[in-house]
Amino acid sequence: MASSTKTPEMRKDTVFNRWVIFSPARARRPSDFKSKSPANPNNSNKSCPFCIGHEHECAPEIFRISSNTCDSDWKIRVIENLFPALSRDDELIQKSNFNPNPNPGFLTCISGFGFHDVVIENPVHSVLLSDQSDSDVGDVLLAYKKRVLQLMLNESIKYVQVFKNHGASAGASMSHSHSQIMGLPIVPPTVSIRLDSMKRCFEETGKCSLCQVQCEELLINESKHFVSVVPFAASFLFEIWIVPRNHTSHFHELDDDKAVDLGGILKLMLLKLSLQLNDPPFNFMIHTSPFMVESSQLPYSHWFLQIVPQLSGVGGFEIGSGCYINPVFPEDAAKVLRDVNV
Amino acid sequence: MASSTKTPEMRKDTVFNRWVIFSPARARRPSDFKSKSPANPNNSNKSCPFCIGHEHECAPEIFRISSNTCDSDWKIRVIENLFPALSRDDELIQKSNFNPNPNPGFLTCISGFGFHDVVIENPVHSVLLSDQSDSDVGDVLLAYKKRVLQLMLNESIKYVQVFKNHGASAGASMSHSHSQIMGLPIVPPTVSIRLDSMKRCFEETGKCSLCQVQCEELLINESKHFVSVVPFAASFLFEIWIVPRNHTSHFHELDDDKAVDLGGILKLMLLKLSLQLNDPPFNFMIHTSPFMVESSQLPYSHWFLQIVPQLSGVGGFEIGSGCYINPVFPEDAAKVLRDVNV
Repeated sequence: MASSTKTPEMRKDTVFNRWVIFSPARARRPSDFKSKSPANPNNSNKSCPFCIGHEHECAPEIFRISSNTCDSDWKIRVIENLFPALSRDDELIQKSNFNPNPNPGFLTCISGFGFHDVVIENPVHSVLLSDQSDSDVGDVLLAYKKRVLQLMLNESIKYVQVFKNHGASAGASMSHSHSQIMGLPIVPPTVSIRLDSMKRCFEETGKCSLCQVQCEELLINESKHFVSVVPFAASFLFEIWIVPRNHTSHFHELDDDKAVDLGGILKLMLLKLSLQLNDPPFNFMIHTSPFMVESSQLPYSHWFLQIVPQLSGVGGFEIGSGCYINPVFPEDAAKVLRDVNV
Repeated sequence: MASSTKTPEMRKDTVFNRWVIFSPARARRPSDFKSKSPANPNNSNKSCPFCIGHEHECAPEIFRISSNTCDSDWKIRVIENLFPALSRDDELIQKSNFNPNPNPGFLTCISGFGFHDVVIENPVHSVLLSDQSDSDVGDVLLAYKKRVLQLMLNESIKYVQVFKNHGASAGASMSHSHSQIMGLPIVPPTVSIRLDSMKRCFEETGKCSLCQVQCEELLINESKHFVSVVPFAASFLFEIWIVPRNHTSHFHELDDDKAVDLGGILKLMLLKLSLQLNDPPFNFMIHTSPFMVESSQLPYSHWFLQIVPQLSGVGGFEIGSGCYINPVFPEDAAKVLRDVNV
């Protein structure tokens, strides 16, 4: 095996500005990694409020995408989260719970104003995102876009994080296929670090790091408008990035044609991960730019979608240092994923 | 309950420069959180290479601390990790596995040279760190210090991360009580971010953030030389920081007297977490300064020990944004921990 003859290496992720240790001495063969806890071992629909016919058990609906079949009058619903992490009560703005303290400079806080929504990706309990057609997955992506554009209108919202948790150990509390959208009153740290790091790379090379992401050894698949790769310094085992071929700063610039194309490659990647890794729990996250991105940032800010299968937890080393240890070299992971027949 | 009347709030962690959402709407009562998977349900010592008498099954010993009892001729052993993430083969320096690529500016890598050691905290399989006396825990801390000072002599090593994983879901692959020490050829991202953030705070306020950490509502316990607190913007449920009262930049400045004192307060915190949270898996990490810290950094760089019980995993929101969601306000967590009788 290639991996058994390799020595450890540290690679710099120039997008997230962190170091990753690739340590094949700790590894099994790249093809031997499987999830020990498949995401949906007991996918029961008993009393699932996300199912068709249970709409009244949910928090208020924000909008729905109508269905053109007779089985359901909706195909996607965007609703409020019944247990939101942030509150959409705008009286909250300026309020804070903490008692005045002799050291105010060290105690920065703002109220927890923001939005926390859920996207129910289809009306039927057992249908996963990867079971849907390219164009249906594209419609889910366009529902994200529509909600992002609505949240942009609120001037207190500085960034929108779109993400999906699949499987309990990836953080999903409901097994019915869904994603989440959080409108945040701050630009989160990962985003600031990413923009600063991509800026530095642009200043050094004159190029956007994500325009250069495509490299034969790391490529998994390509579509008309997107490429899917294992990033050169993947923090997580079998991590995948889906990157627009053309330089684009904001996810919400996605048009209908590109949405179907992205739907197809996203579906393909989820199927490949599921087949290769035994239906692992996973997360995906859309990394876009803040609404108020300065025009000088546009040349180096390039949105992408990151998929992270949950195959191993993090320990004290990762929490302490912010470095990750990955037992599989990205070029080996890319080869394994390229070779999966769907 | 105080928490049920609170509204969500976002707090800035000015040490790690990240935002944390405190979201009591999602919470049970602060005292209701318990681990569902205690760390040592089946603490078997069958064929444990860390046990007394099995020394020959381990990777080479670096040093041992002798015992003054007749049961064992050692009380602590520092050994090489049998499956190290980094390689101590110094021929590795300058070598890299990745093939030359048309875009070298985006592909930064160095060889995986470094040290990955294990500290076996005592010879007996079933004895946890928190079962040992204050002075025995102090001796473990002094063994860390001794190894850190040895690693300082290697000019390729820029930072040493000391950490402990307790329980399988916190990343421990062995149940025999042990810690790990990694000597890294880079200053890791968490450390650079922390020093930059503490510098900014120092420039704004003229004070070191960690000298100001003590606050009545957040205090758990105090000893002669240390305070233990729940940090104002704790990322993790029931996270604890143990901070030296006197401004000190490096962990390895710990003297024998302070080591016993730190041993006592560390033991007390571990016992409180175990009693309150049903023996949760946990990590602790020592956050110190790089060896080559510039003298201008000394006024704002202050080492501390962070303890993180593993009560909930992270999902797509945390991976994507770098923000954390904590359902218990730090002042409520501190009160619960203050009130635990050991």
